[in-house]
Amino acid sequence: MLKAREAVRSLKEYHPPLSGRAGLRLDFNENVSGCSPRVLAKLRRLVPDRLARYPERQSVEHAVAEFLNLSAEQVLLTNGVDEGIHLLCGTYLQQGDEAIIVVPTFGMYEVFVQQTGACLVAVAADPECGFVFPTASLLAAINQKTRLIAIANPNNPTGRVVDQDDLLRVLKAAPAAAVLVDEAYYDFYGETCLPLLEQFPNLFVARTFSKAYGLAGLRVGILASQAAAMKQLRKMASPYNVNVVALACLESAIADSDYVSGYVREVRAGRSLVQKELQRLHVPFWHSQANFVLLRIGDKCLDFVRAMRARGILVRDRSSDPGCAGCVRITIGTAAHTAMLLKALPECLQELSSCSGPALPPAKAAM
Amino acid sequence: MLKAREAVRSLKEYHPPLSGRAGLRLDFNENVSGCSPRVLAKLRRLVPDRLARYPERQSVEHAVAEFLNLSAEQVLLTNGVDEGIHLLCGTYLQQGDEAIIVVPTFGMYEVFVQQTGACLVAVAADPECGFVFPTASLLAAINQKTRLIAIANPNNPTGRVVDQDDLLRVLKAAPAAAVLVDEAYYDFYGETCLPLLEQFPNLFVARTFSKAYGLAGLRVGILASQAAAMKQLRKMASPYNVNVVALACLESAIADSDYVSGYVREVRAGRSLVQKELQRLHVPFWHSQANFVLLRIGDKCLDFVRAMRARGILVRDRSSDPGCAGCVRITIGTAAHTAMLLKALPECLQELSSCSGPALPPAKAAM
Repeated sequence: MLKAREAVRSLKEYHPPLSGRAGLRLDFNENVSGCSPRVLAKLRRLVPDRLARYPERQSVEHAVAEFLNLSAEQVLLTNGVDEGIHLLCGTYLQQGDEAIIVVPTFGMYEVFVQQTGACLVAVAADPECGFVFPTASLLAAINQKTRLIAIANPNNPTGRVVDQDDLLRVLKAAPAAAVLVDEAYYDFYGETCLPLLEQFPNLFVARTFSKAYGLAGLRVGILASQAAAMKQLRKMASPYNVNVVALACLESAIADSDYVSGYVREVRAGRSLVQKELQRLHVPFWHSQANFVLLRIGDKCLDFVRAMRARGILVRDRSSDPGCAGCVRITIGTAAHTAMLLKALPECLQELSSCSGPALPPAKAAM
Repeated sequence: MLKAREAVRSLKEYHPPLSGRAGLRLDFNENVSGCSPRVLAKLRRLVPDRLARYPERQSVEHAVAEFLNLSAEQVLLTNGVDEGIHLLCGTYLQQGDEAIIVVPTFGMYEVFVQQTGACLVAVAADPECGFVFPTASLLAAINQKTRLIAIANPNNPTGRVVDQDDLLRVLKAAPAAAVLVDEAYYDFYGETCLPLLEQFPNLFVARTFSKAYGLAGLRVGILASQAAAMKQLRKMASPYNVNVVALACLESAIADSDYVSGYVREVRAGRSLVQKELQRLHVPFWHSQANFVLLRIGDKCLDFVRAMRARGILVRDRSSDPGCAGCVRITIGTAAHTAMLLKALPECLQELSSCSGPALPPAKAAM
């Protein structure tokens, strides 16, 4: 009888809670205001002949490499960061290996690691210590079997970052492991470890155009490393993994840096306002360097999500993430979105506290 | 030191000869006339908000399932058939397993099988026997370790097909193997094994919108099987594997059946004309059920490709495929493209034979 590999059979099914997302979508860390008008103009100029041709990734890969100050051999465009993670796991992991992640974090690391049959080692960041990056525990978890370490920086869903010194310690401690630094939220933070690529053959950096650039629907990410490592990864990928529309739009997207920097400025200002308001309202939260904030509502977390939805705002319950009991993640958007959010926040919290019992835990988690 | 898995290191690099494809592109089996005007209209109506959202595959998957007379649980949309093959190999194959392919065939089976560390068993179809499907050799190659059998029907690059009786024998002989029937060229043939899905839990059928539908650039394929098997495969895929533009356009593409059937009629008529002309010119070829014809030019194969290119027509040298020494594959397009091809063909052959030596092998390969 036909039987999937054991590693696949033991995988959980993943159902992203996507359908019926009507309202202000502050639940998926997308750029809710959309992409640059130049991208749309490019999309509308596409001709049928272009759609009918197999995509040619190379010239856009060159342009993106130049944009990142890397050589073209160092950069692979991927069908979203998801594919980058998939390829990385497929290239380096097999049964008997170990892969380390720092939880809570982006859910797809676990999925793609477990597919390979490798053992997933989850090192926990402590919410009571501000979800600070657990460098010591991570270093202690590295052993002879470690073949992959995945670090989101800034991290999702906490918004917390890793100091470069800590990254350096990890990179040095695990020369036989692929160390992925996933910079999906780089634009909202501003610090990158791309310059470390030259020094560390085990470093891989991922970027995405799904967040700041407003192109989540187009599925385009980047995986970068030294040329020798990328040569191996490139063998694993379909030559036609990124579609023509994504390729065409990407060139327009990186050309319009004003659009992205303007949006990022708004998000940063909004993030600051929202965090101030949470402080004023005594809602515990974690200081974020990304385009979202994680807050702890407590037992009435789902009521809060519902109350926000009733006001037309979608936010994401993250209760089931490790260390995130009672937590909600809210994406920060433009100034207009932030104004809507700042109006709804106290109303919803008021609504919860007017029901029975204490709505909020002690404020000590706020850092 | 960082080291890719052995199976990855031993993989060859794959460089599709894509760049600089100027002229009439009869080299990649695309629909050179492009997609339905409805698809283009849909593309141009897309709004930035749609591009900025993560794609929701489900509703389009339902529509495609209905289009194929299957249930939604049986169908997974993939980032081209390439991703379908990748997922299938990843779900069923591991080191120690065997996977059988019938060569010559589509090159990506080999790539994705070898990535898993499974052993690739290539059963050859004999060009001197018309590349007829080698049922007996294939059945003889099946053993306890066989976990995947990939069959392109019609096959690429030969255009040859497998009888349903032979498929049934394979399906019955290998109940513990995933049997992939890749129907990428189904539209030009007209026979499908989709109705067999009900009966065989080990059958997987792939389809693509890259060929007849003229959407190669959008990257969208289908993998179908019984619901239980698809549940395993779905766990392996990113929930956002197909981009929003592809999803939006796909609905318009399947709605415009007139466009596709009109195009397919032209291709079939063209195929017949080209095969008659090849007969008249005493050029050996194999009768094709796809949108291309494989012909044997012989030693001067590359000269022929160059002579065609000089006339603005790109065709594909397939000399390095098993059994295809001296062979060229020519895509069949619309009536206008066929007219150009029929003009260029005798001119190029004339040019070759006016050089020294016999240009053509004996005609016995023509079947």
